[in-house]
Amino acid sequence: MGGSVAMALRAQGWYVSGVDRVDAACRRGVELGAFDAIGPDPTADLTFVCTPVLSVAELALEALDHGGIVTDIGSVKAPIVSAVDHPRFIGGHPMAGSEQDGIEGSDPAMFQGRTWVLTPTSKTDSQAFATLYTVISAMGAQVVSVPPERHDELVAVVSHVPHLAASTLMGVAADGAEEHAALLRLAAGGFRDMTRIAAGHPAIWMDICSANRTAIVSVLDRYIEELSAVRSIVDTEDRPALLHRLERARAARLNLPVGAPPPADLVEFRIPIPDRPGFIAEISTLASELGVNIFDIEISHSMEGGGGVLVAIVSASFADLLRGGLVARGFRSSVTRLESK
Amino acid sequence: MGGSVAMALRAQGWYVSGVDRVDAACRRGVELGAFDAIGPDPTADLTFVCTPVLSVAELALEALDHGGIVTDIGSVKAPIVSAVDHPRFIGGHPMAGSEQDGIEGSDPAMFQGRTWVLTPTSKTDSQAFATLYTVISAMGAQVVSVPPERHDELVAVVSHVPHLAASTLMGVAADGAEEHAALLRLAAGGFRDMTRIAAGHPAIWMDICSANRTAIVSVLDRYIEELSAVRSIVDTEDRPALLHRLERARAARLNLPVGAPPPADLVEFRIPIPDRPGFIAEISTLASELGVNIFDIEISHSMEGGGGVLVAIVSASFADLLRGGLVARGFRSSVTRLESK
Repeated sequence: MGGSVAMALRAQGWYVSGVDRVDAACRRGVELGAFDAIGPDPTADLTFVCTPVLSVAELALEALDHGGIVTDIGSVKAPIVSAVDHPRFIGGHPMAGSEQDGIEGSDPAMFQGRTWVLTPTSKTDSQAFATLYTVISAMGAQVVSVPPERHDELVAVVSHVPHLAASTLMGVAADGAEEHAALLRLAAGGFRDMTRIAAGHPAIWMDICSANRTAIVSVLDRYIEELSAVRSIVDTEDRPALLHRLERARAARLNLPVGAPPPADLVEFRIPIPDRPGFIAEISTLASELGVNIFDIEISHSMEGGGGVLVAIVSASFADLLRGGLVARGFRSSVTRLESK
Repeated sequence: MGGSVAMALRAQGWYVSGVDRVDAACRRGVELGAFDAIGPDPTADLTFVCTPVLSVAELALEALDHGGIVTDIGSVKAPIVSAVDHPRFIGGHPMAGSEQDGIEGSDPAMFQGRTWVLTPTSKTDSQAFATLYTVISAMGAQVVSVPPERHDELVAVVSHVPHLAASTLMGVAADGAEEHAALLRLAAGGFRDMTRIAAGHPAIWMDICSANRTAIVSVLDRYIEELSAVRSIVDTEDRPALLHRLERARAARLNLPVGAPPPADLVEFRIPIPDRPGFIAEISTLASELGVNIFDIEISHSMEGGGGVLVAIVSASFADLLRGGLVARGFRSSVTRLESK
């Protein structure tokens, strides 16, 4: 992701020198227009350390020797911030980047509209923070400032523990299905949605689990405790308690903000997917033709198999227009207004 | 889903009489061509009980009085099969149907290529089973026969416990985020994929959790036990054990069969989604134009936000054709062969 950071900086007029353990990556970075030059620059005003979390602290301390502001983009913050412990170091974590990163995927617009977390402490130099804030905002990112420990707990909840939970669930299913492999076919869309992240490459998770050990263990404890409560609710057939939990979770899920900054009012279209090719193309082309901006689109498979439902989130002001277009083409759809937070 | 069963039966030439607590639903069924007539038919050769699981047994026993074969489509089998306990009753569960069911969504092709589980016991009349098997196969479904208890354990693993797990995870996240609502924005695509099923309507889960209590509690116990093992692996930084678990889950997830009966060899295309509208339309139109049948398509959001990746599963024999079309239009993609089971 360092390439994208470099491109976004150059787009603001910065002179950027790139450093990588692999020389070829640096040379490719120059070819692609990410770097002006190669090699460490002791006169740098600002250094972004874009390496795996376990090596950030050491490289940040080296860079701080030269006098500029130093930040990083690691997905765990507290261990790094406390190891570096310097007024000119501010931990950072852009919530952007795709699974296929690497210098070839560099994109100066990667941070447009994304959240970029910064984790200043009481020791942080306020001028350094103000400078970094301005630079990152100019990349189009929305800066959110939280203490490093709070950041780590939040990513444990929304990223690290979900990965471990999905992976573990997939493991339980694989165990149970070995004797009857064909029956994993019973695992319809809902299960597939839920375990999709378990297909990710395991490598980065080793470092993340080490670096964010404390927060992950604490969130896993909470998750296990809540699951044990659910287990006893099911066992005792306590229907009111179960209903309360399911409804609370449903409300929270429906209110989950979508990736892009949403307008105040959004509606969710649910359109059953017919069993023929070209449907997604048809709907997305229709929306384009009508000038309806789709904030988010996803395929929701039914838990029980079947064709699934296309879910599209659009601004409430376009709801009637899109509904009309769908009816004209013979599609059934249901429309639900999402409560704004 | 009764409407779809009725339509699929009529397509085979059966005379179908429909019964529903709501008269209007029956009349609409006749209008839509699902039913020839309305009302109980004491001369029926075959009765499908298509009601919520908790009322199946009583209605099945009534229908058995008349002498025909009786089956059901409930998502839990052991309690029903043991409550009815009759040679002419065979429990069934079609793995099909969408979230927007009801008589309006009836579709005679709903079961084409889907798995339909039947749960005969040692008591089952073999002629009754053979007849039901033939009828359901003629609907285009693939019949899988398993003992009722085994069915219930499998759906607990691939459907019921995942729902409870997603819902519970969403609850943990909602608790943690209340004090800092804007930060649920950190919850990027991976989390959204994983908790999507928690947005489903809670109503049906009350009955399912009652009916399949034993299997759900036993699978929850296994899941909690495995999560506790992961917790201690993370806590002790046992990297080899963590890597082993993540890799095993990844392999199992990549081998998860897709909904439709797949050809022997499939490849997975992963295409980074650019930040502009119309992309999904473009790719799906391209595939249609090239005559490439997409077995499955899904959007995989990166855990860290960002544009996400479009994942398309196609037959290996079309891989070069599709890759060529993508290159010609300037799209990068990675192609992975999926191991066939």
